[in-house]
This record gives sequence, structure tokens and C-alpha cells, in this order.
Amino acid sequence: MPTPEPTLIAKSVLLEDDAVRILDRRVFPFQQSYVECRTVEDVAVAIEQMVTQSSGPGFAAAAGMVLAARAAAGIASAEERSAAMESAAQRLQGTRRTNNFIREATSAILHDAQRAIRDGGDLVAAVTDAAEREGEDYRLRSTQLGRVTAELIPDGATILTHCWAESYITETVRAALESGKTVSAICTETRPYLQGARLTSHSLAEMGVPTRLVTDAMPAHLMARGEIDLFISAADRVSMDGHIVNKIGTFQIALAAHALDIPYVALVQAPDREAQTIDAVEMEDRDPDEVLYALGHRTASPLVSGIYPAFDITPPRYVSAVATARGRFSPYDLHAYYDSKEEMA
Amino acid sequence: MPTPEPTLIAKSVLLEDDAVRILDRRVFPFQQSYVECRTVEDVAVAIEQMVTQSSGPGFAAAAGMVLAARAAAGIASAEERSAAMESAAQRLQGTRRTNNFIREATSAILHDAQRAIRDGGDLVAAVTDAAEREGEDYRLRSTQLGRVTAELIPDGATILTHCWAESYITETVRAALESGKTVSAICTETRPYLQGARLTSHSLAEMGVPTRLVTDAMPAHLMARGEIDLFISAADRVSMDGHIVNKIGTFQIALAAHALDIPYVALVQAPDREAQTIDAVEMEDRDPDEVLYALGHRTASPLVSGIYPAFDITPPRYVSAVATARGRFSPYDLHAYYDSKEEMA
Repeated sequence: MPTPEPTLIAKSVLLEDDAVRILDRRVFPFQQSYVECRTVEDVAVAIEQMVTQSSGPGFAAAAGMVLAARAAAGIASAEERSAAMESAAQRLQGTRRTNNFIREATSAILHDAQRAIRDGGDLVAAVTDAAEREGEDYRLRSTQLGRVTAELIPDGATILTHCWAESYITETVRAALESGKTVSAICTETRPYLQGARLTSHSLAEMGVPTRLVTDAMPAHLMARGEIDLFISAADRVSMDGHIVNKIGTFQIALAAHALDIPYVALVQAPDREAQTIDAVEMEDRDPDEVLYALGHRTASPLVSGIYPAFDITPPRYVSAVATARGRFSPYDLHAYYDSKEEMA
Repeated sequence: MPTPEPTLIAKSVLLEDDAVRILDRRVFPFQQSYVECRTVEDVAVAIEQMVTQSSGPGFAAAAGMVLAARAAAGIASAEERSAAMESAAQRLQGTRRTNNFIREATSAILHDAQRAIRDGGDLVAAVTDAAEREGEDYRLRSTQLGRVTAELIPDGATILTHCWAESYITETVRAALESGKTVSAICTETRPYLQGARLTSHSLAEMGVPTRLVTDAMPAHLMARGEIDLFISAADRVSMDGHIVNKIGTFQIALAAHALDIPYVALVQAPDREAQTIDAVEMEDRDPDEVLYALGHRTASPLVSGIYPAFDITPPRYVSAVATARGRFSPYDLHAYYDSKEEMA
């Protein structure tokens, strides 16, 4: 099978000569429009306003650093140029404090910017190179993670996935297709924000994968009917004791998979050494009103209130494997990740 | 605690002098409007067009028989009056062939109509009495079923319920409140048709019960957080070997309840002697496009198709009790139901 084209959503952040353009995921795929950012402040506001999610903010922040470099290049004083770059990095990191990709990418880019300023190098060129390198590293890790996961997919399999596992799921599917396997997908719609209905199903269908959508209530029954071979999700965080923190609903599907003898594979760049146990992870509840609406339309009685735990926790006994860019690990043996090396393609 | 007022939805079918008026559940609770039916044909069409669901069609069909009797009363020939009543019953039974309540109510009413015609009695009075009796019997069985179920609810409990268990759940909650217990409710929204968001949560809130709404993906996590004491659902059918056929999603929640040690009680008027095993039950898939929309608004990518199994099957090992108007039974001992007597209040 020929390699599928990149998905539209994989081109979420466009670094152009006059501006950074960010695909507006709030209305995707019903509208395919970009938010134009001419300054680092524009980029920060776009991230805060949830124009993009998942890895999108990391790519956007990296591009925002390039805008900052272009603006700072005209400043005569090296000290002020350096201060401007540091301020840009801080502004971007402040948009979403829990997003590792933003923090790591802007820190690395800032490091290169300051070296260029110190050494009298070309600031814009240095920052542009660093931004591209950070994006490329992320993509390489996703590709490697996809390969590692695709090895678990039998030929002809139907994969169930929940929410939007981004480049992890698209790279997994790409690797399976490139190795000659046939793959189908079932996506949960993932209420209330409908990432599955809007982002995942659209992106997999763009790749030519037969893709069907179900409500969040249906996975167990489809497993019982024999229609699902493997459950795959991303993980927002994986604690070192093997608990998977991911979009609400992951745990319920993992319970069903366990009861019906279907493997569950969680995809993450790396287990989180800052959370030695799950108790160290703070769980976030979001605005409960969100469950009362679908795409802005009220779906619930005016008499009720909502509950919106954004994430849930799947204990290690329900996890078949944790797939990372360094290979697959047992959820009971995640320290092995840090004893191993990244094998880049 | 004072007895709560009947819910709006409990008055779904109004038999009035000029017409039958049926609460339009397709738009409830956002609009509280009634579809006016002046003939038995109007009633049949309203049932076919899904104006009402659950027990609503049974009440509507009974009221439709009264409209038929009013029309037939002017016919001179006894034979033609009888034929008109038989034709009305057949028309109504043809609207939803799998609805037991329609079939049983119209058969019983037709029986009384034909006796009145044969004996020269008042056809309209006989049919009106019979229609009221059928409705009253249904309500009494629901009340009894509610009492039997309420005994399982601890004081202060939070009940989780899925989809719309109708008078079974409202009578259960009513019985719990009347016995002095405090009860809260969590309802799943029940995509795609949103019965939980629209009907259940509205009706329980009308009864003064603190009621919160969650997406279909959230029950397992709330159970793990210790926020749910009991899972209650209706059952469309219960086979004699203890399998629960109910709205898609019930099985997934029952699996979670089992894993997290929370009782699951299925409510049904009677187990189905025509299904000695679950294999005798035909499972229905509905229009897959329905999962791509919420209340008429497209929620899914234009590139995907849907899957919509309307019901799922919960095996007896995940069912704590089957509650009926004749008491509670183990799912492994449903033959005991037919050895027992209905104890009406």
C-alpha cells in the first residue's frame, strides 16, 4: 500500500514569511480555517483560546519563538535582544503550564537564541533552525512510537481508539499500512468535545482507512460482538507505577477490553518520572456546563447541572502494554524505559 | 419528605373530549408541546413518527381505542361496529410490533369492546373504562416495582441510571423518598438520542432530586471516585437465562459496576418466557447516521460513517438483581417469577 498523504491536522501550524497560521481545531473539520498570528502575543492568545490542542501548542510555541526572533532582530542591544527572547519564551510557557512540549521546545529554542546573540550569529536563522529541529524531533519520536505500536496490530485488524491520540495514532496506522497490513478503525465520538467525531475519525479517513464512528457507550458491546481486535489510546501522563491518565472514558473502555480479552495499548512519549506513583498526579475537573452542550447547542434539560472530570485513571492491571518511542514496556516495568535508549530511525 | 408531584412526562397522553393529545418527546424538554390526534389513524401515525416512546405508545394506543369507539358508536350495524374496533386494534398493533404494552392493552380493550357490542352495552363507556384500567394496571405494576427496587437503595445514596427507565425509575425514586430516604441521581446523557439528558434528568429534577448529568464515558471513573452507590436501568427484555437486553451502553456500565463492586439492578415488568435463552432475542441495529448528529446538528466529520447497535446484552454474572412487580429475583432464578404472584398495593 502506498504511504498515505499527511493528514490536514498534521499541518496545524504554518510558519510563513508574514505570520504564523494555526489551524482552528475549534471548528475543524466543519470549517478548515487558520487563525493568523503576526506576533508572539497573537500566538500566545491563540493557544490560550484553544485554537489548537495536543501537540499543536508545542508547534505553535516553536513558531511563535521565530516571530519573536524576527521582531528582536532589529533591536540594537544584545542584552535587550536576549531579554526579548526570554520574555517571549516565558509568555508562551505561561499559556499552558502543564504542557511539556511547549516548555521543552521553547527552552531549547531560547538556549540556541541566546548562544546566537552571545556569539554574534544570525538570530532569526538560529531560532528558525531550532524550531524546525524541535518539531522534527517530535515527529521522529511519533514515527518511532507508531512503528513500535504497529507491530502489535494483526493484519486485517479493527482498532478502537478514544479521543484524539494525534500523531501517535496516525503514525501507528501509517506504520501498519506501510508494512502491508490492512487496518480498519472505530472511533468513539468522545463527548463533550467530540474529538473522536471531529479530529480522529476525519484524520484516519483522510489516510484512506475505513473509519466508523460510535458513541462513547458502544465499545463494550462491539467487543462482545467480536468487532474490535485492539484498543489504542494516547496517555496524557503515565505514572511510574503504571497508571494511565487519559481523556475521561479511557478507563471504562479499558475495563471492557479486559473483561472481553482484548489488548489495550497506551501510547506516550515517556512515562513521567515526576510522578513516581499515581497519587502525585493532580486530576483536573473542567467546566461542568460543557456536558450540557454539543458544539454550542444545549442538549440537556434546563433543570440539571453537569459533572466533567476531564481525565480518568486506568490502573496497570488493565493495560497490556505502554508503547513509547523507546519501545513497548509492561506497565509494571516502566523504569526499564529510562534504562533504554531512543532508537531514532 | 412529601410525595413529589407527578412528572410532566408521566402525563404524556391526555384523553380529552375532542381529541387525544400526546406530549412530543422528540422536542421535550426544550419545548413542551402536544401532538393533537383526532382519529385512531392520527394516533397510529404519531406512534410511528416517534412522538412518544417507552410506555407512551401503550397509553396512546389505549386512548386511540377510545377515539375508535367514539367514531364506531354511530355505526348502525353491530357487525360493522365490531369490525371497526378490530381494525383499529390491528392498526395500532401494527405501529410497533415489538411493543408488548400496545399489543396487550389493545387486545384487552378490544375484548371488552366486543363484549359490549354483543351484549348491547355502551361501547364508548366500556372502551373508556377498559383503557383506564389498562393504564392503571401499568401504573400499579410500576409502583410495585418501584417499591421493590427502593428497598435496595441506602439512605443518602447516589443512583446512576442510563437512558430513560420511565415510570420504573421515577416510581423507584418516589418510593425511596416516601420511605424517608435522601437520594441523589447521576444520569448518563445516552447518545445519540439523549434520553438521559432530556427525559430522565428532567423528570428526576422535577421530583426534587438533586440530579447531575454526565457523558456516557464517565460512569466507571465516578464509580472509582466513590460517587455512585447503585446502578439502575430498565430492561427492554430479560431472557429466562438472565441476560438483560437494554439500551446500548448498559453492558459497559454494568461491566464497570462489577469491576468496582457496585450493585446493578435491572428493572422489568416480567422476564420474557418467549425467550428461554438470549439466543432467541433478535438484536436491532438502527440507522447508523444517527450517531453522526446531536439533535439534528452534524457532530461528526463528513468523511465517516456510523454504527448504531440500539441495544446491548448484559450477561447474568454482571447483574445483582432483577426487580419486577412481583419482587426481586436472581438473574439465575427467573423461573421463580412465574411461580410467584403479583402483590398489588
